[in-house]
Formats: sequence, structure tokens, C-alpha cells
Amino acid sequence: MTSVKIDHIRDAAARIAGVALRTPLLPQPWSRERELWLKPENLQPVGAFKIRGAYNAIAVLGEAHRANGVVTHSSGNHAQAVAFAARTFGVPAVIVMPDSTPRVKIDATAAHGAEIIEVPMAERERVALEVAAERGMRLIPPFDHPDVIAGQGTVGVEIVADLPDVDVVLVPVGGGGLASGVGVAVKALRPAARVIAVEPELAADAVESLRAGHRVHWPADRRARTIADGLRTEPSELTFEHLREVVDDAVTVTEDEIRATMRLLATRARVVAEPSGAVACAAALHRELPPGRTVAVVTGGNVDPALLADVLRMA
Amino acid sequence: MTSVKIDHIRDAAARIAGVALRTPLLPQPWSRERELWLKPENLQPVGAFKIRGAYNAIAVLGEAHRANGVVTHSSGNHAQAVAFAARTFGVPAVIVMPDSTPRVKIDATAAHGAEIIEVPMAERERVALEVAAERGMRLIPPFDHPDVIAGQGTVGVEIVADLPDVDVVLVPVGGGGLASGVGVAVKALRPAARVIAVEPELAADAVESLRAGHRVHWPADRRARTIADGLRTEPSELTFEHLREVVDDAVTVTEDEIRATMRLLATRARVVAEPSGAVACAAALHRELPPGRTVAVVTGGNVDPALLADVLRMA
Repeated sequence: MTSVKIDHIRDAAARIAGVALRTPLLPQPWSRERELWLKPENLQPVGAFKIRGAYNAIAVLGEAHRANGVVTHSSGNHAQAVAFAARTFGVPAVIVMPDSTPRVKIDATAAHGAEIIEVPMAERERVALEVAAERGMRLIPPFDHPDVIAGQGTVGVEIVADLPDVDVVLVPVGGGGLASGVGVAVKALRPAARVIAVEPELAADAVESLRAGHRVHWPADRRARTIADGLRTEPSELTFEHLREVVDDAVTVTEDEIRATMRLLATRARVVAEPSGAVACAAALHRELPPGRTVAVVTGGNVDPALLADVLRMA
Repeated sequence: MTSVKIDHIRDAAARIAGVALRTPLLPQPWSRERELWLKPENLQPVGAFKIRGAYNAIAVLGEAHRANGVVTHSSGNHAQAVAFAARTFGVPAVIVMPDSTPRVKIDATAAHGAEIIEVPMAERERVALEVAAERGMRLIPPFDHPDVIAGQGTVGVEIVADLPDVDVVLVPVGGGGLASGVGVAVKALRPAARVIAVEPELAADAVESLRAGHRVHWPADRRARTIADGLRTEPSELTFEHLREVVDDAVTVTEDEIRATMRLLATRARVVAEPSGAVACAAALHRELPPGRTVAVVTGGNVDPALLADVLRMA
């Protein structure tokens, strides 16, 4: 049994309404082999699905418990999501970032009104916990938390609401918060649908873990080889317990497939996807999958403009 | 009095439901000067709002009158929209295109199952009329038709439904079908809102005409200077009559502003806009406008990948 249930996700959906965008499903008539829809989470205010989990987790706290603010450690989309959500509630946010984080990401997070603390990579977690203790702030982890998973699961509720006879749901897996939440929602609302986790071949620790039936650790530097920077994390005990139960299969995609799909999403679907955001759609185009009506989640669109320009120039 | 009324647009909205995408409004929290939402018509199945008018016009015909198929002359988004809509109805479509049309646009239109006839630029209209007469096909013009205007007007109905207290609606004007329809809808449903037409400075015939109070003709080669290829057309008698009544003001934007806005839409809003699709948002960012809650219509996203790569590489 998963600890996050469909009722938690339904509650999260009510909380995030009006803050997270209710993204539509985008039909892709150019996809001839398979009926394909995209779930464009790149259109969210912070450019990624992370707003759903971050906002839900802060909302659940209640006014008294969030009054002192929230803290997290992240250099990615979760950082911006927590900063944005905290400002929506009018409470302070502290984001602990590795001092190697590109300036553009620091600035984007600071633009949402958050206080940024830059520390050496290895000290992120310790500093975040210190800030939480010293300032009485609540820690909002990027995926290892039931309220975060429930928030991300609202993506699955919306998919089934918009396409009740969906057959295949493709969702990327990094830390596993999104895949866990979407899996719980889809299995509850449309049990016949297959939930397939997708991971870069160069960071395929979750796929290997799911096949092994237990968590297999890949060193961080091995996972860091993929261009899909949002998927370099590994599942926690909590998310892995969910993934084992709600994911039907797991497949990998190559770096070339990710780049080609970024290009195709820009030119045929007219959406900007970051590498991690193109991974699920890449599986729809390049892997043998069960037949039927297929939804691929485009998780985010925060990409270096130079990288996007590069893939647009590919032959 | 305009000949297209809000009731026509409401009827059109019912007809296109389930075929045209019900696009959401995308809030843009990075816009600090002005509360800004985008209406992302680039997400439509053919990559542009044109599906609304084309589908509505074919639907209105009724089964008997469309049985022999439809014909149009266009090298742009209307061509793909008519081809896509005709296939949805299971009727043949003939698209007459100038023989100078880029191969990629011809292929994209043919991919929707349309028959393409390439002719010298000057013979487009004559050939389309001939095909219509000889094959008993109905002509679906790109903007000079009440049913097309009514279809495009559904964009305005959706804007007011999603943001009832909208203050400013920015809509590009080329032939004027979209601006006419959106203007009629917004003025009927939210009379206090200002409807502002936006045009490239290099093809500002409609702005000049609106200021003069009568249609001022610009030679085609003068209008062709703008990068915004969807806005090189000029209003017809029918659309100009609507524009005069429902447009509150008209402004122009420069080519540099269009390019900069394409870049910004890709990086901050994570949507791909063609040059014409960036024009309304460019006005929101670069022109003095009435204050308040502002919606800019992103009309389409069918852009040459090399051009998009170029604007992404801008400093």
C-alpha cells in the first residue's frame, strides 16, 4: 500500500486551484504511429510542475506553521517553485543553493523574492536544516514528502479528467515525486491505463532499481552525465515504495533522443521543453510501448537558450 | 453596426468545441510593470488560431454544401487550418499556393491530406475560384468572411470567460479577421475593456487606415518588409468596417521588438511564437498603453527553426 492515496491528491487539487495552471492536454496530430497528447507543465508560472507540490506542501502547513517561512535546498525548478509559492502566501523563503549554481538560476529564484544562501555543494542539506532550526522555518523537500507527492499527483488527476480512456501515461522519473503521484492518481482513476516511467539511459538508477526490486545506488557523478539535469536525483525510500506499486514499466532514452525531441517539441508542438521535459515524449517516439491513447508529461521548460538554439540547428 | 454579432461568435464557440483547443490564459509573473496574461494560440493543433475560423466556416456549410470539399488560397497558417478542418469533416481540400512557397509549408499542408496546387503568385485567386467552380467546392477565405470572423472571435469569448475583469486586450492585425472577431466579443462581454490592435511598423497599413478613418492601401512589396509574415495582408471592406467599430486604439512595434519578444516568449513563457505571434506581446512590453489587467494573444508558433535559433542567440 502506498502512503499517498487518491484522496490526498484530490485535496491537493483543491488547494492548488487558481495558483498552479490547469494545463490542457495538447493533441499532436503529427504523431501518426500513436495517438499522442502532451501535458505541458512547462506553461506553469515557474515553468515546471514543481509549483504543484511546493504550493500544496506549504498550504498544508496552515497559517501558524508557515508564518516564519519555509526553506529548501535546490538549484533547480523546485527552488523557484518554493520561492513563488512562499510569496503567494506572503511568507519568507530561504533557498540554499550550491555555489556552483549558474547565475541565471540564482537570479530567477531571487526574482521571486527569496533569500538565497550559496554554500559548497556538500553543505546544502546541513545548512538548510540549520536555517530551519534557527529561524523556525519549515523544510519543503523537493520530492521526499507525502504532501509534495500529492501535489505532483494532481497532474494525473487532470490527465484522466481530460482523457478518461487514456491507455498509456509516460512520466519522467528522477527523485520520483512526480511519477509516484501521477501513478497513484492514474491507477486509482483509470486502473486499465499503463503508467510508464522514463529515465535518461545515463542516469537510469530508478529503472535499474525497479527491475531489481530494490533501490540500486548510482554515484552522483555517474548520474550527472545526462543533459537532463532535472533527473539526476535518485528516488528516496518513500518515493521508491510508491514507484514499485504504481509504475507498470520503466524505459530509458538516449541523450540524442532527448535532443531530437526538444527540437521536435519546439517545431511541431510549439512548446519549449528543457531536456528533462522532453524525456517522456522521447519514449513515445523512440521506444516500443503498449498501444493506445498516450499522454506524455512535458515536465518543464527552463532551458539554457544556447542549448535550445543548438538543438534547433540540428539537421 | 458590425455584421458579425456576439451571437454568431457564441454559435461558433459551440461548433469548434472539441476540435480547436480551449487554450488557457497563461499568467506571466515576470511581467512587473503590468499584470500580463498570454492567450497561447500557438498550442492549437495546426499551431495557430486559424483553425477556429476555418473549422467554423466549414461547419456552417452543412453536410450537403461541403460534400464536394473546400478550396482556399494561402501559403500560411490558414492553408494548414483548412486542410486540417476538411479532414476532420472527411471532405477533400484543395489549397492553392504560390510556387514561391517554402517546401516545408507545402509539406506541412499536404501532410493534413490536402491537394496542393502550386501557381504563380498573381494567379492564386483566379485558380482557386476556377477550382471552386469546376469541382463544386466551397471557397473558405482567410479572413474576408463573417463565419471566419465569428470563428476567430471565440478567442475573445474565452479571454473574458477566464479573466472577467480584463482591462486591455492586445491583438495583432493583418487581414483583420482575428482583431474583428475578438473586438466584437470583448466589446459585447466586457465593454469597459480596451481592445488594441497591434501591427508591425513596416506593415502598418491598418493602423494608418484606422487613424485616417478609411482604408489606406500599402503596396504588397511595402508590407512584405516585415518579418511578421502573417501580418502582411491588408483588411478587407468587411473587416475594416468591424475594426473601425470595435478597436479602441492601434499601435505599431518594430522588427527588433518583435525579435526580442520571440526570445522572451521562449525563455520566460516557454512558448514558441512565430514573428506575427510575438507582435501583441511586444506592444505590452514596449508601448505606452492604458493600465490594468492585460491579455496579449500569441497567434501562432509556426516559425523557421533557424530564425528561432537566431533570436535565442541574441545578447
